[in-house]
Amino acid sequence: MTETARTVTLAKRPEGVPGDDCFALEDRPLGDLAEGHVRVRVIWLSLDPYMRGRMNAGKSYSPPVEIGEAMGGQGVGEVIGSRAEGFAEGDIVTGMFGWVSHADAPAGEVRRLDPALAPVQTALGVLGMPGLTAWVGVHRILEAQAGETAVVSAATGAVGSVAGQLARRHGLRAVGVAGGPEKCAYAEEELGYDACLDHRAPDLRARLGEAAPDGVDGYFENVGGVTLEAVLPALNDHARIALCGVVAWYNGQGVADAMPLPAMWRTILVKRLRVQGFIIYDHFHRFPEFLAEVGPLVADGTLRYRESVTEGLENAPAAFRAMLEGGNFGKTLVRVGPDA
Amino acid sequence: MTETARTVTLAKRPEGVPGDDCFALEDRPLGDLAEGHVRVRVIWLSLDPYMRGRMNAGKSYSPPVEIGEAMGGQGVGEVIGSRAEGFAEGDIVTGMFGWVSHADAPAGEVRRLDPALAPVQTALGVLGMPGLTAWVGVHRILEAQAGETAVVSAATGAVGSVAGQLARRHGLRAVGVAGGPEKCAYAEEELGYDACLDHRAPDLRARLGEAAPDGVDGYFENVGGVTLEAVLPALNDHARIALCGVVAWYNGQGVADAMPLPAMWRTILVKRLRVQGFIIYDHFHRFPEFLAEVGPLVADGTLRYRESVTEGLENAPAAFRAMLEGGNFGKTLVRVGPDA
Repeated sequence: MTETARTVTLAKRPEGVPGDDCFALEDRPLGDLAEGHVRVRVIWLSLDPYMRGRMNAGKSYSPPVEIGEAMGGQGVGEVIGSRAEGFAEGDIVTGMFGWVSHADAPAGEVRRLDPALAPVQTALGVLGMPGLTAWVGVHRILEAQAGETAVVSAATGAVGSVAGQLARRHGLRAVGVAGGPEKCAYAEEELGYDACLDHRAPDLRARLGEAAPDGVDGYFENVGGVTLEAVLPALNDHARIALCGVVAWYNGQGVADAMPLPAMWRTILVKRLRVQGFIIYDHFHRFPEFLAEVGPLVADGTLRYRESVTEGLENAPAAFRAMLEGGNFGKTLVRVGPDA
Repeated sequence: MTETARTVTLAKRPEGVPGDDCFALEDRPLGDLAEGHVRVRVIWLSLDPYMRGRMNAGKSYSPPVEIGEAMGGQGVGEVIGSRAEGFAEGDIVTGMFGWVSHADAPAGEVRRLDPALAPVQTALGVLGMPGLTAWVGVHRILEAQAGETAVVSAATGAVGSVAGQLARRHGLRAVGVAGGPEKCAYAEEELGYDACLDHRAPDLRARLGEAAPDGVDGYFENVGGVTLEAVLPALNDHARIALCGVVAWYNGQGVADAMPLPAMWRTILVKRLRVQGFIIYDHFHRFPEFLAEVGPLVADGTLRYRESVTEGLENAPAAFRAMLEGGNFGKTLVRVGPDA
């Protein structure tokens, strides 16, 4: 049983886009496996936009990562040692292992996966937090109604791709916004969006008006930035904004050019908008309900998803950076080790 | 029966605070009273912050007043001529008569008042749109729960004074924010706020933290500006903002100094806030329910209110300007003519 873990730590806090110097790669001893814990060889690491917030010192919804500490994150791996009831070597589990090759975790904080249901890494994407985020956002936050129009930002991302498909299944017109023609084509052809608009091309606002001729009733907000500003004029009275991320602003870019708050506040008032921030941690209790609905759709291929896989833990920083800049395509994963 | 109406018209669109040159005072012929209409001698004119928005050319939730058109607004008056079933001379009615001494109105757009219930001008304040706005905001938008803390901006204004009292009656801790020590003293001593803070004094943010030691669960947002920015850090997770006005920004002042949108968006996300814009027009159907609850509280003196009365229609522009700058105290009214 391995005694050390390759670990990506936070070397310094980034300003803007986190460079390589913000990370360090180290071997760290694991020590003895404690009673009630399992030792896991990580196979897959999930990279998610929220991690950028945790690299800052300021309080966010999760506490910041300390300098010298391992970067946090969810993974999927194989149990290689167990001192916990109900877990055996060879089990495939998911948990918050971090950016590491191996980790010890309390049994209560890992969940066993059924490899027969779907590829195990879907526990990090379409059948994990991103999928749950999409499901909660569409059904509980947007309160989407058949016949309405929803706009989904980051439309081909881990969250957006599920949100768009669920909205369509629910009888909505779904308009995606994504970066670049390749993603837009995928959104329309594979994910079934009624239309998908490239936010890098000119006149997003005008194109969005055309793609949503009856206006927009729900906006699934992952990004902020120019997409938000383009959606606002298209929003109908009483529209809802489900706000679960502002990735366009995470690196501090575009913040100075953003529209002034008074204009936004006036729009919320005049259109009687509801803007609802939500974080998936508050909704974990809905996971079984979500899995019961979405699991079969993934298993039978109805719900499409795409993965952007980077090989090797040492390449996680570059993959993370690319994701923040929109260079990923679908769920961003790092393959840390071979399949079990 | 009078054949002309003294009328305040919009002479030009204001930039910033509307000067006297934005208004004109004219006598306008009323013509013959049409079938199904009543002719009203106006006694009271209500001045409300939303009127500032209608002076601009841009689309708001109400259409703009055109140049040369009478300024719009609600009034209370006496029927002096009737060609409508069910209305007789001497009836006291309320309707959207505008900034005028006399007006003709379709019978379907006026409501008869009962002078025995409460002073008739309360139909413009505590028992009218401002009171209904407060009631809807506290109960339907903030969804205020006993034991929570609410902050009410413009705490002694026509809306805020009712919102604060209703919140207290509902078992909340109510913290007001108002302009100047006189208003704050009135808020605490007469209206029953647990505390009221002067937004013109320094360190509003720190004082608000002290006045709301358990944080803020609901913010009744009438003003925007520095009050909003002071409230944000005190908001608890899952707090609600009921947004029904942004009077601090109506004249364009302070807009450039406002916090950037990305910081607000991040706060909404991190604290999982719900920001809900609302306009009372959407809630008129609740008027009977509101009147049944709040009417008796006004009649027996439980619910306190205060009026800021200016004599004479010709002084409406100055009174309006003073209200926008916080120079009013309670419900702003113009006495246009003598009691019936």
